[in-house]
Amino acid sequence: MRARDIGEFGMIERIRTLFRSAPDIPVWIGDDSAVVRPFEGDTLITTDSMVEGVHFLSPWDAYFELGQKLVVAGCSDISAMGGLARYFLLTLVIPAETNLDVLERFLRGIAKKSEELGIYIIGGNISGGERIEAHITVLGETKKPITRSGARVGDIIYVTGKLGGTRAGLEILMNPKIDLDERIKKGLVARFLNTSGQIFTGKKLAETGCISAMIDISDGLIADINHIIELSGVGAVLDLKRIPIYEGVIEYCAKVGKNPSLFASVSGEEYELLFTVRGDCEKEFLQHLRDFDCPITRIGHIKRGSGLEGIEGVEGGGFVHW
Amino acid sequence: MRARDIGEFGMIERIRTLFRSAPDIPVWIGDDSAVVRPFEGDTLITTDSMVEGVHFLSPWDAYFELGQKLVVAGCSDISAMGGLARYFLLTLVIPAETNLDVLERFLRGIAKKSEELGIYIIGGNISGGERIEAHITVLGETKKPITRSGARVGDIIYVTGKLGGTRAGLEILMNPKIDLDERIKKGLVARFLNTSGQIFTGKKLAETGCISAMIDISDGLIADINHIIELSGVGAVLDLKRIPIYEGVIEYCAKVGKNPSLFASVSGEEYELLFTVRGDCEKEFLQHLRDFDCPITRIGHIKRGSGLEGIEGVEGGGFVHW
Repeated sequence: MRARDIGEFGMIERIRTLFRSAPDIPVWIGDDSAVVRPFEGDTLITTDSMVEGVHFLSPWDAYFELGQKLVVAGCSDISAMGGLARYFLLTLVIPAETNLDVLERFLRGIAKKSEELGIYIIGGNISGGERIEAHITVLGETKKPITRSGARVGDIIYVTGKLGGTRAGLEILMNPKIDLDERIKKGLVARFLNTSGQIFTGKKLAETGCISAMIDISDGLIADINHIIELSGVGAVLDLKRIPIYEGVIEYCAKVGKNPSLFASVSGEEYELLFTVRGDCEKEFLQHLRDFDCPITRIGHIKRGSGLEGIEGVEGGGFVHW
Repeated sequence: MRARDIGEFGMIERIRTLFRSAPDIPVWIGDDSAVVRPFEGDTLITTDSMVEGVHFLSPWDAYFELGQKLVVAGCSDISAMGGLARYFLLTLVIPAETNLDVLERFLRGIAKKSEELGIYIIGGNISGGERIEAHITVLGETKKPITRSGARVGDIIYVTGKLGGTRAGLEILMNPKIDLDERIKKGLVARFLNTSGQIFTGKKLAETGCISAMIDISDGLIADINHIIELSGVGAVLDLKRIPIYEGVIEYCAKVGKNPSLFASVSGEEYELLFTVRGDCEKEFLQHLRDFDCPITRIGHIKRGSGLEGIEGVEGGGFVHW
């Protein structure tokens, strides 16, 4: 069966069946707009895209995982503002000849992950097109948004999780025959496809009251720290040796002749959180650390001026579209 | 100059220059999410797509107008809920080889129309891809949403504006050499490309307190009235002869051998409003009509049962993607 066999409305019906409807949303799929009751705080809104040939390749055949990843990518941006994701809209571009099995797996991945994260679909759009694409718009809420621009001189830079695994996983997907222990390869590919993100960590960090700026690592640690310092009008010193490295990345880097710390510092789609803690708040923040179940590592500090120190030897930045 | 010459971040900078920033939005383009302060009423959210090869063809070379049209399409869905559009997010898919002049005109069309309608860009996303695409997500607000599902037996069906012009304009764009008065052709193509929609009319209609259900005509009058009656669990009788016909459509239909009323009843992308007035409210509603500066025409009524009467002879429905 192909997309054209069930048509646009058949697909909307399929989505209606696969997804739970939000309990507190009076109008969802099937009207001109969705209706969302007022949040207590501010509304956060963000959008992310996944385009075949750009963000993924059809030979990977990992549509369930890609569906999950799309949801993580969208919700990660809400978490990075210190917010909690609540609802999402899904825009699909589907070639008429798309195999329905592929679509079904993709949608099931989205449904599974959104259920896991407690967010609900409330609308979207379906078009024909040349390549499979999905665009997610996520709505979240927060009482006090944490922006990228709040870093001040003397603040300490932290990162959640361990880095480098998503890039290594992606490279292995592109070159699956690389000579490396199969268990390590599997773990790294899984890290790329099943990145869970820090979807609830951003809000928890914001609630410590110690965070001055935050971003999620989608372009790569160095590119993303540059976003923070440029928007905050400050400089930073990074201690590359402190960057936490994901399991298997050291073995992978040995095989491809790269420095693991440099490699991890430009790995994109990590969906870990990079943030700054106010200088006068560090002791208090250390007290909070025990409440978090992910690694949280100090990797540098904010300084006067501009630019990033300590990254000598890093070639290239994160992913760019052109 | 091509898209690849200025890159993704160059394009974001261009957007930042072309568009006004919202006065009451603390965080817009350039952070992980946009931050929107609470609305007084409910939040409306909708999304719409424009894909090269599906919704438009590059030989038309009408990118400024297509940019305007994208904004109209998105805001029209908010109006159809009785709401007022406030903010939007823009997701672009841009092939690296895209001529920057094309992009510039497209963005200027979006900027112009959004300024005209008093809505502000607050975020979005840019990806590479095979074809030019734009997806708009519009946020609006309303104190009392008008859904598609509120039509009741005895309600009267009305439509704003005059129909058929957008379809005739599209067909002329696809077949520009058709033998027809040039002035008429120009008027119809302009109607298709410059549809202004009823962006402020929906809220005004909702404020009369007389409207039971509403939808905007994007698929075509008949397809869209079917959405209302199916979701409302009622039937309807349409008086095809009463359908208001756009200027030039009669001449166009004479040339292509079609019945203008039937033609107008399946014309999509009209962005006029189709709505039902409560049966016990019709006199009151007629009093309100003088406050509207667009034609508002009674075209049928809601009846018990299901299905649509009075459309004998209409072939096919509106636009379907596959």
